[in-house]
Amino acid sequence: MTLNAIKRLSLAMLGLSLAGLAGAATPPNVIIIFADDLGYGDLACYGHPSIRTPHLDRMAAEGLRFTDFYAAAALCTPSRAALLTGRHAIRSGMTHRPGTRAVLFPDSPGGLPPSEITLAEALKMAGYATALIGKWHLGIHEGSRPRDQGFDHNFGLPYSNDMDRREDVPGEARFRPDPPADGWNVPLLRNEEVIERPADQTTLTKRYTEEAVRFITANRTKPFFLYLAHNMPHTPVFASEAFRGKSPRGAYGDAVEELDWSTGEVLAALRREGLAERTLVIFTSDNGPWLTEREQGGSAGLLRDGKGSTWEGGMRVPGLAWMPGRIAPGVTSEAAGTLDLFPTALALAGQPSPAGVTLDGTDLSPLLFAGRAPPERPFFYYRGSDIYAVRLGPWKAHFFTQGGFGDPARKAHAPPQLFHLARDPSEQFNVAADHPDVLARLRTAVAAHQAAVVPGEPQLQ
Amino acid sequence: MTLNAIKRLSLAMLGLSLAGLAGAATPPNVIIIFADDLGYGDLACYGHPSIRTPHLDRMAAEGLRFTDFYAAAALCTPSRAALLTGRHAIRSGMTHRPGTRAVLFPDSPGGLPPSEITLAEALKMAGYATALIGKWHLGIHEGSRPRDQGFDHNFGLPYSNDMDRREDVPGEARFRPDPPADGWNVPLLRNEEVIERPADQTTLTKRYTEEAVRFITANRTKPFFLYLAHNMPHTPVFASEAFRGKSPRGAYGDAVEELDWSTGEVLAALRREGLAERTLVIFTSDNGPWLTEREQGGSAGLLRDGKGSTWEGGMRVPGLAWMPGRIAPGVTSEAAGTLDLFPTALALAGQPSPAGVTLDGTDLSPLLFAGRAPPERPFFYYRGSDIYAVRLGPWKAHFFTQGGFGDPARKAHAPPQLFHLARDPSEQFNVAADHPDVLARLRTAVAAHQAAVVPGEPQLQ
Repeated sequence: MTLNAIKRLSLAMLGLSLAGLAGAATPPNVIIIFADDLGYGDLACYGHPSIRTPHLDRMAAEGLRFTDFYAAAALCTPSRAALLTGRHAIRSGMTHRPGTRAVLFPDSPGGLPPSEITLAEALKMAGYATALIGKWHLGIHEGSRPRDQGFDHNFGLPYSNDMDRREDVPGEARFRPDPPADGWNVPLLRNEEVIERPADQTTLTKRYTEEAVRFITANRTKPFFLYLAHNMPHTPVFASEAFRGKSPRGAYGDAVEELDWSTGEVLAALRREGLAERTLVIFTSDNGPWLTEREQGGSAGLLRDGKGSTWEGGMRVPGLAWMPGRIAPGVTSEAAGTLDLFPTALALAGQPSPAGVTLDGTDLSPLLFAGRAPPERPFFYYRGSDIYAVRLGPWKAHFFTQGGFGDPARKAHAPPQLFHLARDPSEQFNVAADHPDVLARLRTAVAAHQAAVVPGEPQLQ
Repeated sequence: MTLNAIKRLSLAMLGLSLAGLAGAATPPNVIIIFADDLGYGDLACYGHPSIRTPHLDRMAAEGLRFTDFYAAAALCTPSRAALLTGRHAIRSGMTHRPGTRAVLFPDSPGGLPPSEITLAEALKMAGYATALIGKWHLGIHEGSRPRDQGFDHNFGLPYSNDMDRREDVPGEARFRPDPPADGWNVPLLRNEEVIERPADQTTLTKRYTEEAVRFITANRTKPFFLYLAHNMPHTPVFASEAFRGKSPRGAYGDAVEELDWSTGEVLAALRREGLAERTLVIFTSDNGPWLTEREQGGSAGLLRDGKGSTWEGGMRVPGLAWMPGRIAPGVTSEAAGTLDLFPTALALAGQPSPAGVTLDGTDLSPLLFAGRAPPERPFFYYRGSDIYAVRLGPWKAHFFTQGGFGDPARKAHAPPQLFHLARDPSEQFNVAADHPDVLARLRTAVAAHQAAVVPGEPQLQ
């Protein structure tokens, strides 16, 4: 059976399952708010001293705040592929290999394969209205575009906001909030149509928010899945007039504070429409902060390194889950991540996982709704197509280490470096020599995963 | 007029002022809870992922959380001298100079001079019951002891819990919670009497807490000042049986989580006695985390360096202010610190500042009770007797930099290194070249301070 045949069969089975639920109560909505390059330390509720995030702090206080929530990769494209498929990006071929670029670029031929079942496709088959508002970055060619991958509708940029750089705009002038004279020529799309080029980046967050609120309001009577994937605070950071120049943290803070406002607007719309208690809202980020971007990059707080790296700062990100009346307020240190959102959303929708598809995450419903910890399971820190590190319980072993950007070579470690993440969250003290038994368990977990994983056809060149 | 004569006159005037208030309502109580070597990043409400501090988080949510709160020095002895006198430690001679030790040791001849007016003395003259429960570290000789400096009563260790080290107990065994066989021979005092030696450090926090609750209960009908100066989480970290081995963060986390419990007990006692709305409670730390102590040391979060250093991590610490009904819940990024506690407490007590005494802080009452920012004022980062750095508004200039410990030499900077602490809280990007005007203002502030400051007779040898 080809992959596409498996996909057709899986979706058909989801459809049958839905038919069996006919007449049942409307299943809950799902909203995933995905920030771009927001670091672990960049919200006030994660300890930032000069970025003000009262709406996200309130969301955290009313919901569940994760201390150990992981993006599935340390870079945009593989992280987004993994979130939407519920699978490590290597399975869809959305990871780099030696000699290829690390993410999709405007001239890349590849994209998320049509054979992959996205969360949007699975929920659409279950009767959900689906929308991508914001950044895609999973391919611009037929078969890989948002509407080819289960979204009824999309509005946003096809890739990162620092692509299509205008070489005619010099240096710092690129960052000036003077559209259309800023330094990037990225297109703004509605579905497949370019409606603005260059996109006015200063109003992106504002327009994404308005679009999100319209989508929520329009779908108040049916289940919906909203994937609100902001372009901010990825460099170049921009904010609308109401936020520009306002944050003590500078331009980066302006962008994050506008995201905070945006999240407040989304939650307010849910409350206003009476949907708060039947909408799961997740807020997280695609990877850690871009540390080489100076003040345009964020902070990983006490975590080591940032975007691009498999040190904690590259992949551990803010993670908030909100559903008043269903999720009890609190803080959890259970390890979880974006790979878990696919099975969690399907469980919430009352749907089985797609048949014949290997998922890498776990349904978090017992944790979210009943405070029951998920079973211990390994988490694999991929950098491109290689596993650089693995976590099991509090233990993390690094087989390779490498800085996020500007660190050209990886260091191999034999034996691996071993850190206890709860006792040593900043990964300072290698205790491999004291715990050969732990290393053996971690090695076994990696071997079992690698023996079973089937890499997808490479999409990055 | 000698210093002692000034002190006598000042105290007499405080007494007259009190007489004038006869019949007025009971002034509010003041409690300062002072952790030892607790880092900026070590509480959940400041972003720590694996130390659980629900009571302090609740105190923060009910009160005012400071993002920019400073200890007055990066080491125990000068920090404590400054807090209790409201004056930079150089004024009382409690700072090191080249060739001297950095803090008081058990064999040190010096101590806080009798001529200094402590907050305990000032409040005692205003009719307050006063107690030190916990660590002193301002001298063990007559004239410098707690009861010589205004405390009616004291219970605790005379100095740090890692002093009086037992050389007969080898290496790691020193840290085992097996009293009296652990590795330190520190005495526990009640007033001037040694009541236990070595002190059982595992139950110190517990016993300090019980003593604090007894003091509160016993003084429910009169104003009181409680200085609850914990010995934890200064290495060697110990916790009582209920906390030992419980924190995911290990032994350090056990100690901090017991401090969290302790703070919860104090606030509960205030509520129980009906005193919550007329007691100002401050929670803070004497300096940043001791980074060279590996897992026995804490975390400065996103701040640079730690204890001993004038980078932010050495002196910026958690700061919480709580007084339900008087202090509105919130977060402030106004710069403030332990130097402000003396004038704030006196204002709360309705007392003028002692005549003829130069104070270095500002009354925070307008900020605490009305949300009004204090006037912009410089903050001086002393290392020993030298000013290494200065802050004014968001700007910080470093004239010298040096790591906390194990960094033998200071580096002089001409021009000074300049950082914008709100935009760059981790002090990564020196922007001195772009802001000569700011540097000039900062230099002027230092020059004005140095022209006026009168160093006290040196106490450290």
